Amino acid sequence: MTATAPVTRLFHFVAANTGPWKVNAAHYLCGDPLPAATRIAVVPDTPEFHLNGASWSLRGITSNERYVTRAEKTALVAKQEGLGRTQASCAALIPIRKNAAWWALPQDERRQILEEQSQHVAIGMKYLPAIARRLHHCRDLSGNEPFDFITWFEFAPADSAAFDELLAALRASPEWQYVDREVDLRLSLANG
Amino acid sequence: MTATAPVTRLFHFVAANTGPWKVNAAHYLCGDPLPAATRIAVVPDTPEFHLNGASWSLRGITSNERYVTRAEKTALVAKQEGLGRTQASCAALIPIRKNAAWWALPQDERRQILEEQSQHVAIGMKYLPAIARRLHHCRDLSGNEPFDFITWFEFAPADSAAFDELLAALRASPEWQYVDREVDLRLSLANG
Repeated sequence: MTATAPVTRLFHFVAANTGPWKVNAAHYLCGDPLPAATRIAVVPDTPEFHLNGASWSLRGITSNERYVTRAEKTALVAKQEGLGRTQASCAALIPIRKNAAWWALPQDERRQILEEQSQHVAIGMKYLPAIARRLHHCRDLSGNEPFDFITWFEFAPADSAAFDELLAALRASPEWQYVDREVDLRLSLANG
Repeated sequence: MTATAPVTRLFHFVAANTGPWKVNAAHYLCGDPLPAATRIAVVPDTPEFHLNGASWSLRGITSNERYVTRAEKTALVAKQEGLGRTQASCAALIPIRKNAAWWALPQDERRQILEEQSQHVAIGMKYLPAIARRLHHCRDLSGNEPFDFITWFEFAPADSAAFDELLAALRASPEWQYVDREVDLRLSLANG
Protein backbone atom coordinates (compact mmCIF):
# COMPACT_ATOMS: atom_id res chain seq x y z
CA MET A 1 0.00 0.00 0.00
CA THR A 2 1.46 3.38 -0.96
CA ALA A 3 1.26 6.43 1.28
CA THR A 4 -1.49 7.90 -0.88
CA ALA A 5 -3.63 4.74 -1.06
CA PRO A 6 -7.14 5.22 0.29
CA VAL A 7 -7.54 3.62 3.69
CA THR A 8 -10.94 2.19 4.46
CA ARG A 9 -12.35 -0.42 6.80
CA LEU A 10 -15.25 -1.17 4.41
CA PHE A 11 -14.86 -3.88 1.76
CA HIS A 12 -17.07 -5.19 -1.03
CA PHE A 13 -17.10 -8.84 -2.07
CA VAL A 14 -18.22 -8.72 -5.67
CA ALA A 15 -19.41 -11.72 -7.66
CA ALA A 16 -19.13 -11.25 -11.42
CA ASN A 17 -17.66 -12.82 -14.54
CA THR A 18 -14.30 -11.25 -13.86
CA GLY A 19 -12.21 -10.93 -10.73
CA PRO A 20 -8.98 -12.42 -9.41
CA TRP A 21 -10.55 -15.26 -7.41
CA LYS A 22 -12.12 -18.24 -9.18
CA VAL A 23 -14.99 -19.98 -7.37
CA ASN A 24 -14.22 -23.69 -7.12
CA ALA A 25 -17.05 -24.74 -4.82
CA ALA A 26 -20.06 -23.27 -3.04
CA HIS A 27 -21.54 -24.90 0.05
CA TYR A 28 -24.85 -23.69 1.45
CA LEU A 29 -24.73 -24.86 5.07
CA CYS A 30 -27.90 -23.27 6.36
CA GLY A 31 -30.36 -20.55 5.48
CA ASP A 32 -30.86 -19.06 2.05
CA PRO A 33 -28.13 -19.75 -0.53
CA LEU A 34 -26.49 -17.07 -2.69
CA PRO A 35 -26.84 -17.06 -6.49
CA ALA A 36 -24.08 -18.93 -8.29
CA ALA A 37 -20.87 -17.01 -8.95
CA THR A 38 -17.83 -17.76 -11.09
CA ARG A 39 -15.40 -15.08 -9.91
CA ILE A 40 -15.03 -12.94 -6.77
CA ALA A 41 -13.21 -9.64 -6.30
CA VAL A 42 -12.48 -8.10 -2.90
CA VAL A 43 -12.70 -4.33 -3.36
CA PRO A 44 -11.98 -1.63 -0.76
CA ASP A 45 -14.78 0.93 -0.66
CA THR A 46 -14.21 4.26 -2.39
CA PRO A 47 -16.63 7.05 -3.35
CA GLU A 48 -16.28 5.84 -6.95
CA PHE A 49 -17.18 2.22 -6.18
CA HIS A 50 -20.09 0.82 -8.15
CA LEU A 51 -21.40 -2.60 -9.01
CA ASN A 52 -21.26 -2.51 -12.81
CA GLY A 53 -21.88 -5.99 -14.08
CA ALA A 54 -21.89 -7.69 -10.68
CA SER A 55 -24.29 -10.58 -10.22
CA TRP A 56 -24.28 -9.89 -6.46
CA SER A 57 -22.13 -8.30 -3.83
CA LEU A 58 -21.76 -8.37 -0.07
CA ARG A 59 -20.11 -5.78 2.13
CA GLY A 60 -18.52 -5.77 5.54
CA ILE A 61 -16.40 -3.53 7.73
CA THR A 62 -13.39 -4.37 9.87
CA SER A 63 -13.84 -3.16 13.42
CA ASN A 64 -12.58 -3.30 16.98
CA GLU A 65 -12.39 -6.67 18.66
CA ARG A 66 -15.58 -7.73 20.40
CA TYR A 67 -14.33 -10.63 22.55
CA VAL A 68 -10.57 -11.09 22.72
CA THR A 69 -8.63 -10.28 25.85
CA ARG A 70 -5.25 -8.58 25.97
CA ALA A 71 -3.50 -11.94 26.42
CA GLU A 72 -5.33 -13.45 23.44
CA LYS A 73 -4.68 -10.40 21.27
CA THR A 74 -0.96 -10.46 22.09
CA ALA A 75 -0.75 -14.15 21.21
CA LEU A 76 -2.70 -13.67 17.96
CA VAL A 77 -0.63 -10.68 16.83
CA ALA A 78 2.61 -12.57 17.51
CA LYS A 79 1.53 -15.55 15.39
CA GLN A 80 -0.71 -14.27 12.61
CA GLU A 81 0.30 -13.18 9.10
CA GLY A 82 -1.52 -10.82 6.79
CA LEU A 83 -3.50 -11.32 3.60
CA GLY A 84 -1.80 -11.28 0.22
CA ARG A 85 1.03 -13.77 0.85
CA THR A 86 2.33 -15.11 -2.48
CA GLN A 87 1.94 -18.77 -1.48
CA ALA A 88 -1.65 -18.21 -0.28
CA SER A 89 -3.39 -18.92 -3.57
CA CYS A 90 -6.46 -20.47 -1.89
CA ALA A 91 -9.19 -18.45 -0.21
CA ALA A 92 -12.59 -18.89 1.36
CA LEU A 93 -15.42 -16.38 1.64
CA ILE A 94 -17.72 -17.36 4.52
CA PRO A 95 -20.64 -15.07 5.33
CA ILE A 96 -22.70 -16.06 8.38
CA ARG A 97 -25.70 -14.76 10.27
CA LYS A 98 -26.51 -15.46 13.90
CA ASN A 99 -30.04 -15.69 15.25
CA ALA A 100 -31.97 -13.28 17.47
CA ALA A 101 -31.25 -15.38 20.57
CA TRP A 102 -27.52 -14.75 20.14
CA TRP A 103 -27.92 -11.00 19.77
CA ALA A 104 -30.19 -10.80 22.82
CA LEU A 105 -27.48 -12.30 25.07
CA PRO A 106 -25.45 -9.92 27.25
CA GLN A 107 -21.74 -9.52 26.56
CA ASP A 108 -20.53 -11.89 29.30
CA GLU A 109 -22.72 -14.77 28.09
CA ARG A 110 -21.71 -14.31 24.43
CA ARG A 111 -18.05 -14.34 25.45
CA GLN A 112 -18.67 -17.45 27.58
CA ILE A 113 -20.19 -19.33 24.64
CA LEU A 114 -17.66 -18.08 22.09
CA GLU A 115 -14.51 -18.91 24.02
CA GLU A 116 -14.97 -20.76 27.31
CA GLN A 117 -17.47 -23.20 25.71
CA SER A 118 -16.41 -23.11 22.04
CA GLN A 119 -12.71 -22.12 22.02
CA HIS A 120 -13.28 -19.98 18.94
CA VAL A 121 -10.10 -17.93 19.46
CA ALA A 122 -8.03 -20.92 20.56
CA ILE A 123 -9.10 -22.98 17.53
CA GLY A 124 -8.18 -20.17 15.13
CA MET A 125 -4.83 -19.77 16.91
CA LYS A 126 -3.95 -23.44 16.31
CA TYR A 127 -3.98 -22.82 12.56
CA LEU A 128 -1.83 -19.66 12.59
CA PRO A 129 0.07 -18.53 10.67
CA ALA A 130 -1.03 -20.98 7.93
CA ILE A 131 -4.63 -19.76 7.76
CA ALA A 132 -4.77 -15.95 7.50
CA ARG A 133 -8.10 -14.33 8.25
CA ARG A 134 -9.86 -10.99 8.10
CA LEU A 135 -13.21 -10.56 9.87
CA HIS A 136 -15.74 -8.06 8.53
CA HIS A 137 -18.86 -6.98 10.42
CA CYS A 138 -22.11 -6.42 8.52
CA ARG A 139 -24.94 -6.41 11.05
CA ASP A 140 -24.69 -2.72 11.94
CA LEU A 141 -24.05 -1.38 8.44
CA SER A 142 -27.81 -0.90 8.15
CA GLY A 143 -30.93 -2.29 9.71
CA ASN A 144 -31.32 -4.78 6.90
CA GLU A 145 -28.19 -6.75 6.03
CA PRO A 146 -28.29 -10.33 4.70
CA PHE A 147 -25.43 -11.51 6.96
CA ASP A 148 -23.90 -10.48 10.29
CA PHE A 149 -20.25 -11.31 9.47
CA ILE A 150 -18.08 -12.07 6.47
CA THR A 151 -14.79 -13.82 7.10
CA TRP A 152 -12.18 -13.94 4.35
CA PHE A 153 -9.49 -16.61 4.70
CA GLU A 154 -6.27 -17.13 2.70
CA PHE A 155 -3.97 -20.15 2.76
CA ALA A 156 -1.63 -22.24 0.63
CA PRO A 157 -3.08 -25.23 -1.28
CA ALA A 158 -1.19 -27.59 1.06
CA ASP A 159 -3.16 -26.19 4.01
CA SER A 160 -6.60 -26.93 2.55
CA ALA A 161 -7.12 -29.99 4.75
CA ALA A 162 -6.10 -28.00 7.84
CA PHE A 163 -8.62 -25.34 6.87
CA ASP A 164 -11.39 -27.94 6.62
CA GLU A 165 -10.41 -29.20 10.07
CA LEU A 166 -10.59 -25.65 11.50
CA LEU A 167 -14.10 -25.16 10.08
CA ALA A 168 -15.27 -28.57 11.28
CA ALA A 169 -14.14 -27.72 14.83
CA LEU A 170 -15.96 -24.36 14.79
CA ARG A 171 -19.12 -25.80 13.26
CA ALA A 172 -19.27 -28.51 15.92
CA SER A 173 -19.02 -25.93 18.72
CA PRO A 174 -21.89 -24.63 20.90
CA GLU A 175 -21.44 -21.19 19.30
CA TRP A 176 -22.56 -22.56 15.93
CA GLN A 177 -25.98 -23.48 17.33
CA TYR A 178 -26.69 -19.75 17.00
CA VAL A 179 -25.75 -19.62 13.30
CA ASP A 180 -28.87 -19.55 11.12
CA ARG A 181 -27.34 -18.72 7.74
CA GLU A 182 -23.97 -19.79 6.41
CA VAL A 183 -22.47 -19.92 2.94
CA ASP A 184 -18.97 -21.22 2.22
CA LEU A 185 -17.32 -20.30 -1.08
CA ARG A 186 -13.95 -21.88 -1.88
CA LEU A 187 -11.71 -19.94 -4.19
CA SER A 188 -8.33 -19.99 -5.86
CA LEU A 189 -6.34 -17.32 -7.61
CA ALA A 190 -7.14 -17.33 -11.32
CA ASN A 191 -4.04 -17.40 -13.48
CA GLY A 192 -4.17 -14.32 -15.70
CA MET B 1 -46.54 0.89 17.36
CA THR B 2 -49.06 -0.94 15.17
CA ALA B 3 -48.45 -4.41 13.79
CA THR B 4 -47.76 -2.97 10.35
CA ALA B 5 -45.36 -0.22 11.49
CA PRO B 6 -41.92 -0.54 9.93
CA VAL B 7 -39.40 -1.85 12.43
CA THR B 8 -35.87 -0.58 12.06
CA ARG B 9 -32.82 -0.21 14.27
CA LEU B 10 -31.53 2.76 12.21
CA PHE B 11 -32.53 6.31 13.17
CA HIS B 12 -31.84 9.73 11.67
CA PHE B 13 -31.42 12.84 13.82
CA VAL B 14 -32.42 15.63 11.50
CA ALA B 15 -31.71 19.33 12.13
CA ALA B 16 -34.02 21.66 10.23
CA ASN B 17 -36.45 24.55 10.69
CA THR B 18 -39.22 22.17 11.64
CA GLY B 19 -39.36 19.17 13.94
CA PRO B 20 -40.91 18.32 17.31
CA TRP B 21 -37.85 19.14 19.43
CA LYS B 22 -36.72 22.74 19.95
CA VAL B 23 -33.00 23.29 20.53
CA ASN B 24 -32.52 25.30 23.71
CA ALA B 25 -28.75 25.04 24.03
CA ALA B 26 -25.76 23.58 22.22
CA HIS B 27 -22.51 22.79 24.02
CA TYR B 28 -19.41 21.85 22.05
CA LEU B 29 -17.32 19.98 24.61
CA CYS B 30 -14.48 18.84 22.39
CA GLY B 31 -13.65 18.34 18.73
CA ASP B 32 -15.42 20.00 15.84
CA PRO B 33 -18.81 21.59 16.58
CA LEU B 34 -21.97 21.01 14.52
CA PRO B 35 -23.67 23.82 12.60
CA ALA B 36 -26.36 25.62 14.59
CA ALA B 37 -29.82 24.03 14.59
CA THR B 38 -33.21 25.28 15.75
CA ARG B 39 -35.28 22.07 15.64
CA ILE B 40 -34.49 18.35 15.71
CA ALA B 41 -36.58 15.40 14.50
CA VAL B 42 -35.80 11.76 15.32
CA VAL B 43 -36.84 9.73 12.28
CA PRO B 44 -36.76 5.93 11.91
CA ASP B 45 -35.11 4.93 8.64
CA THR B 46 -37.34 3.89 5.74
CA PRO B 47 -36.62 3.40 2.04
CA GLU B 48 -38.47 6.68 1.46
CA PHE B 49 -36.40 8.69 3.94
CA HIS B 50 -34.71 11.77 2.51
CA LEU B 51 -33.19 14.92 3.91
CA ASN B 52 -35.31 17.57 2.18
CA GLY B 53 -34.58 20.90 3.79
CA ALA B 54 -32.34 19.54 6.56
CA SER B 55 -29.39 21.68 7.59
CA TRP B 56 -27.61 18.54 8.80
CA SER B 57 -28.39 15.04 9.99
CA LEU B 58 -26.71 12.30 11.95
CA ARG B 59 -27.57 8.62 11.95
CA GLY B 60 -27.09 5.75 14.33
CA ILE B 61 -28.25 2.17 14.81
CA THR B 62 -29.34 0.40 17.97
CA SER B 63 -27.44 -2.83 18.48
CA ASN B 64 -26.56 -5.63 20.86
CA GLU B 65 -24.94 -4.70 24.15
CA ARG B 66 -21.17 -4.46 24.04
CA TYR B 67 -20.28 -4.45 27.75
CA VAL B 68 -23.14 -5.25 30.13
CA THR B 69 -23.27 -8.54 32.00
CA ARG B 70 -26.40 -10.61 32.59
CA ALA B 71 -26.72 -9.20 36.14
CA GLU B 72 -26.40 -5.61 34.91
CA LYS B 73 -28.86 -6.19 32.07
CA THR B 74 -31.44 -7.70 34.42
CA ALA B 75 -31.11 -4.73 36.81
CA LEU B 76 -31.36 -2.20 33.95
CA VAL B 77 -34.39 -3.85 32.37
CA ALA B 78 -36.18 -3.97 35.75
CA LYS B 79 -35.65 -0.25 36.34
CA GLN B 80 -35.63 1.52 32.99
CA GLU B 81 -38.55 3.08 31.15
CA GLY B 82 -38.91 3.70 27.44
CA LEU B 83 -38.85 6.84 25.33
CA GLY B 84 -42.01 8.81 24.64
CA ARG B 85 -43.32 9.24 28.20
CA THR B 86 -45.77 12.17 28.34
CA GLN B 87 -43.98 13.90 31.23
CA ALA B 88 -40.59 13.59 29.49
CA SER B 89 -40.70 16.88 27.58
CA CYS B 90 -36.92 17.45 27.85
CA ALA B 91 -34.37 15.65 25.73
CA ALA B 92 -30.66 15.68 24.98
CA LEU B 93 -28.86 14.58 21.81
CA ILE B 94 -25.25 13.74 22.62
CA PRO B 95 -23.04 12.44 19.81
CA ILE B 96 -19.52 11.41 20.83
CA ARG B 97 -16.45 9.99 19.19
CA LYS B 98 -13.70 8.02 20.92
CA ASN B 99 -10.07 8.12 19.83
CA ALA B 100 -7.96 5.47 18.10
CA ALA B 101 -6.37 4.40 21.41
CA TRP B 102 -9.81 3.34 22.70
CA TRP B 103 -10.63 1.29 19.62
CA ALA B 104 -7.25 -0.43 19.70
CA LEU B 105 -7.88 -1.79 23.21
CA PRO B 106 -8.99 -5.42 23.54
CA GLN B 107 -12.48 -6.14 24.90
CA ASP B 108 -11.42 -6.89 28.49
CA GLU B 109 -9.53 -3.60 28.86
CA ARG B 110 -12.39 -1.53 27.40
CA ARG B 111 -14.81 -3.20 29.81
CA GLN B 112 -12.39 -2.57 32.69
CA ILE B 113 -12.20 1.15 31.90
CA LEU B 114 -15.92 1.53 31.16
CA GLU B 115 -17.23 -0.15 34.28
CA GLU B 116 -14.66 -1.20 36.87
CA GLN B 117 -12.85 2.16 36.60
CA SER B 118 -15.65 4.48 35.43
CA GLN B 119 -18.92 2.91 36.65
CA HIS B 120 -20.62 3.90 33.40
CA VAL B 121 -23.44 1.38 33.82
CA ALA B 122 -23.79 1.98 37.57
CA ILE B 123 -23.98 5.76 37.10
CA GLY B 124 -26.71 5.44 34.47
CA MET B 125 -28.60 3.03 36.75
CA LYS B 126 -28.68 5.59 39.59
CA TYR B 127 -30.77 7.90 37.41
CA LEU B 128 -33.32 5.30 36.29
CA PRO B 129 -36.16 5.46 35.58
CA ALA B 130 -36.05 9.30 35.54
CA ILE B 131 -33.54 9.56 32.69
CA ALA B 132 -34.56 7.33 29.75
CA ARG B 133 -31.88 6.62 27.20
CA ARG B 134 -31.39 5.04 23.79
CA LEU B 135 -27.88 4.35 22.52
CA HIS B 136 -27.17 4.35 18.78
CA HIS B 137 -23.93 3.09 17.23
CA CYS B 138 -22.43 4.95 14.27
CA ARG B 139 -18.82 3.85 13.94
CA ASP B 140 -19.52 0.76 11.82
CA LEU B 141 -22.22 2.26 9.58
CA SER B 142 -19.46 3.12 7.14
CA GLY B 143 -15.73 3.71 7.22
CA ASN B 144 -16.23 7.43 7.51
CA GLU B 145 -18.72 8.51 10.18
CA PRO B 146 -18.40 11.81 12.09
CA PHE B 147 -19.23 10.20 15.48
CA ASP B 148 -19.00 6.74 17.07
CA PHE B 149 -22.17 6.93 19.20
CA ILE B 150 -25.30 9.02 19.50
CA THR B 151 -27.19 8.85 22.77
CA TRP B 152 -30.71 10.23 22.99
CA PHE B 153 -32.02 11.01 26.49
CA GLU B 154 -35.55 11.94 27.63
CA PHE B 155 -36.60 13.25 31.05
CA ALA B 156 -39.07 15.53 32.82
CA PRO B 157 -38.10 19.20 33.34
CA ALA B 158 -37.80 18.54 37.09
CA ASP B 159 -35.03 16.02 36.40
CA SER B 160 -32.80 18.43 34.45
CA ALA B 161 -30.44 18.97 37.38
CA ALA B 162 -30.16 15.20 37.89
CA PHE B 163 -29.33 14.83 34.20
CA ASP B 164 -26.52 17.40 34.51
CA GLU B 165 -25.19 15.46 37.50
CA LEU B 166 -25.20 12.20 35.51
CA LEU B 167 -23.24 13.82 32.67
CA ALA B 168 -20.77 15.45 35.05
CA ALA B 169 -20.05 12.06 36.63
CA LEU B 170 -19.48 10.39 33.26
CA ARG B 171 -17.33 13.24 31.93
CA ALA B 172 -15.12 13.11 35.03
CA SER B 173 -14.52 9.36 34.59
CA PRO B 174 -11.40 7.69 33.13
CA GLU B 175 -13.50 6.52 30.16
CA TRP B 176 -13.98 10.12 29.02
CA GLN B 177 -10.23 10.58 28.53
CA TYR B 178 -10.79 8.61 25.32
CA VAL B 179 -13.55 10.93 24.03
CA ASP B 180 -12.17 13.26 21.36
CA ARG B 181 -15.38 14.77 20.02
CA GLU B 182 -18.54 15.54 21.96
CA VAL B 183 -21.55 17.75 21.25
CA ASP B 184 -24.44 18.18 23.69
CA LEU B 185 -27.73 19.57 22.40
CA ARG B 186 -30.47 20.29 24.94
CA LEU B 187 -34.03 20.13 23.68
CA SER B 188 -37.61 20.50 24.73
CA LEU B 189 -40.83 19.52 23.04
CA ALA B 190 -42.11 22.40 20.93
CA ASN B 191 -45.76 23.16 21.61
CA GLY B 192 -47.62 22.79 18.34
